[in-house]
Amino acid sequence: MSSKELLSKIEKNEETVGVIGLGYVGLPLAVSFAKKGIKVLGIEKSEKKVLEVNAGQNYIQDVEDAVLKACVQEGKLSATGDASRIGECDVLIICVPTPLDHFKKPDMSFIESACVDIGRNMKRGVFISLESTTYPTTTEDVVKPIVERESGFKEGEDFWLCFSPERVDPGNKDYKTENTPKVVGGLGEEAQKIAVALYGKAIQKLYPVSSPRVAEMVKILENTYRLVNISLINELALLAGKMDINIWEVIDAAKSKPYGFQAFYPGPGIGGHCIPLDPFYLEYVAKGINFDLTMIDAAGRINNLQPYRIMNKISYALNRQGKPMNGSTILFLGVAYKADIDDARESPALLVMEECAKKRANVLYYDPYIPEVIDEHGKKWTGVVLTDELIENANCVVFTTAHSCFDVEHIVEKAKLVVDLKNMVKSVNIEDEKVFKL
Amino acid sequence: MSSKELLSKIEKNEETVGVIGLGYVGLPLAVSFAKKGIKVLGIEKSEKKVLEVNAGQNYIQDVEDAVLKACVQEGKLSATGDASRIGECDVLIICVPTPLDHFKKPDMSFIESACVDIGRNMKRGVFISLESTTYPTTTEDVVKPIVERESGFKEGEDFWLCFSPERVDPGNKDYKTENTPKVVGGLGEEAQKIAVALYGKAIQKLYPVSSPRVAEMVKILENTYRLVNISLINELALLAGKMDINIWEVIDAAKSKPYGFQAFYPGPGIGGHCIPLDPFYLEYVAKGINFDLTMIDAAGRINNLQPYRIMNKISYALNRQGKPMNGSTILFLGVAYKADIDDARESPALLVMEECAKKRANVLYYDPYIPEVIDEHGKKWTGVVLTDELIENANCVVFTTAHSCFDVEHIVEKAKLVVDLKNMVKSVNIEDEKVFKL
Repeated sequence: MSSKELLSKIEKNEETVGVIGLGYVGLPLAVSFAKKGIKVLGIEKSEKKVLEVNAGQNYIQDVEDAVLKACVQEGKLSATGDASRIGECDVLIICVPTPLDHFKKPDMSFIESACVDIGRNMKRGVFISLESTTYPTTTEDVVKPIVERESGFKEGEDFWLCFSPERVDPGNKDYKTENTPKVVGGLGEEAQKIAVALYGKAIQKLYPVSSPRVAEMVKILENTYRLVNISLINELALLAGKMDINIWEVIDAAKSKPYGFQAFYPGPGIGGHCIPLDPFYLEYVAKGINFDLTMIDAAGRINNLQPYRIMNKISYALNRQGKPMNGSTILFLGVAYKADIDDARESPALLVMEECAKKRANVLYYDPYIPEVIDEHGKKWTGVVLTDELIENANCVVFTTAHSCFDVEHIVEKAKLVVDLKNMVKSVNIEDEKVFKL
Repeated sequence: MSSKELLSKIEKNEETVGVIGLGYVGLPLAVSFAKKGIKVLGIEKSEKKVLEVNAGQNYIQDVEDAVLKACVQEGKLSATGDASRIGECDVLIICVPTPLDHFKKPDMSFIESACVDIGRNMKRGVFISLESTTYPTTTEDVVKPIVERESGFKEGEDFWLCFSPERVDPGNKDYKTENTPKVVGGLGEEAQKIAVALYGKAIQKLYPVSSPRVAEMVKILENTYRLVNISLINELALLAGKMDINIWEVIDAAKSKPYGFQAFYPGPGIGGHCIPLDPFYLEYVAKGINFDLTMIDAAGRINNLQPYRIMNKISYALNRQGKPMNGSTILFLGVAYKADIDDARESPALLVMEECAKKRANVLYYDPYIPEVIDEHGKKWTGVVLTDELIENANCVVFTTAHSCFDVEHIVEKAKLVVDLKNMVKSVNIEDEKVFKL
């Protein structure tokens, strides 16, 4: 198939879109295409997810159950674990994770494995788009050579490449996959034409850029900006605490400046699938050319220290009541990495819990959205059911996530001691005998 | 005078407001009060400024000439060098500079001297507000003891204190003194009442906070945020350059994200009266309590290195044309620290010029708003008149400030070589033979 034929197929809505990886990025995207009447095939290694999708069952918070169900019933969306079915697809969109290993080195194995699957099973004349966040040059230097090697095809003639970063913000009520402007960076003019024609059908607004590497850098910049600013405010919050300054009041007042300021808030640390990771892809590639990224490095240090610092805060609060950490019962409210979502990936609350447990505290947690969670050492934590008795008996209750369903007033009333990391207790300025604020 | 009497005087518009320091903060503020029919006395050490104000002559870009003139003619605004006239004032607003010395230690001498003048000359029952940017605790720990010592009065009984940070952004077309929300942090309830009554007459929107130190921290947070983000993008710009990525395109694409991102742009460094200074007030006070501010420190390092790095960029550009820096004529376009203003304080362009001069380049500059400028070593630089011959004869032309009056196309056409630090040459993506981009 030539690029013209592919374009014409896309214009007629006759293409089959293969989405590789049906997680929080892939599934919403698959549904966005399918609801426009485009045939979508999800290729996913988890058998459970494949079965759920094919049964019309949604498992991602940002996807509407009824919409997914309708797409499946109308035959527009199906899933498979069989990589050979990649051969049915005219378009392949890679939405697999790119984690960091324990040494903050990007783990490219999911992308590489997807590329091998594509290369071995693709037909000639397809369009391949990578959405996984990764370091600049990945599309050209990782995806392209693997696909060429495995398929024997040539990029720009037999297939076309693009990088288009996912911008999914789980729990965001205003911006979902379809109405968040999408950056698309095709490799070459033909790839860009196909990218714009394809994504333009499912996404309301596109922002084309001149190359995949620019698109790769865009995503890194967005999240490096966030990492750096959250780290900055976490550091300033500690200083402010030492100077009897309520950092939350400072931030809200600074927000009254109508230009040149954007508010970030402190907390137990940085979590989620993007902000703690993305900047370190860039650091990795920078090290390869002997370039030190001092701002990312400094931010990384603050973030690494944050769980210890928060554990210390809790310890100081207990100490003021004459209690050691050792043997105290500490109840953490919220392990989700941000408010009102059910995701505990890279959760800073978990890291604080681990630190307190190391100091021999009796650590409990409650999260209405996360009944159990496995930490990075493979330990399984099971949440408790929140009762007045539990709150009353805890030596310290810690607000780690700002879930809006928490009955803050009631919890503070029942608790012996509260450490408030998320400015939940508005009635207290900096701290009083019972409430410690970050 | 009791606080009630002072409040009633303010309500009746009968107070005399003394503004100490008639610079880019004090003069616009003085005019904002005077145009509301309030009697304003400017107390200013520069005889030239006193004469100009009393002659109805404006010297600050953000003040309207006609408005100042009218205020003076109506007898609402006058200036004096005589500190004893502080005794005529019911309200005193301190708008003096707080520079850093060469070791980045805050120079508090202007604030201290203003406080001594106030303490020695004030009458009982006045309200004193500090607007100079400074480290948190200054109002309580510097202003209060000096005024009490010199006057024999007692804060909270004989006079009231407030910190209200200036938010002047020179050259900002949308936000001037009157329509920029103003943070006010009175020391105690009475001070806050007076502060709100007073400032509310001249400023459209106030944002009261619970203490002077919160207000002090607000200003530092605003500008630390800017320092850190400009430093971040300056660092990323260098890396992007090495990776053949156009950072300007990346930033514009990242701006298409409708939440959670604010764009900052790279350049020759950080200039002006606030951003390069304010964060280091905080670093100073933090060091006093053994607290290291790693983000500010990292940002400071990047900023310190930026002039060298830019000099190197220019040197590489010359090198590609087979020229050494030594003996080359380099024409810098713009020494103002930002576009379309006439202010070269802490100008990064000047630092780059000095670096190039050290490497024996023949350094020239042109700035339509700044005919001459004195660098930090006391050396006077005189701008040239921009001619085609000058552009043609220069070995390199450097865009250092994005003045909108520059005829970029014409300059690029005439020049042998252009180093574009401000993305002025839109027609070039990253670089071509003639144009080097940051």
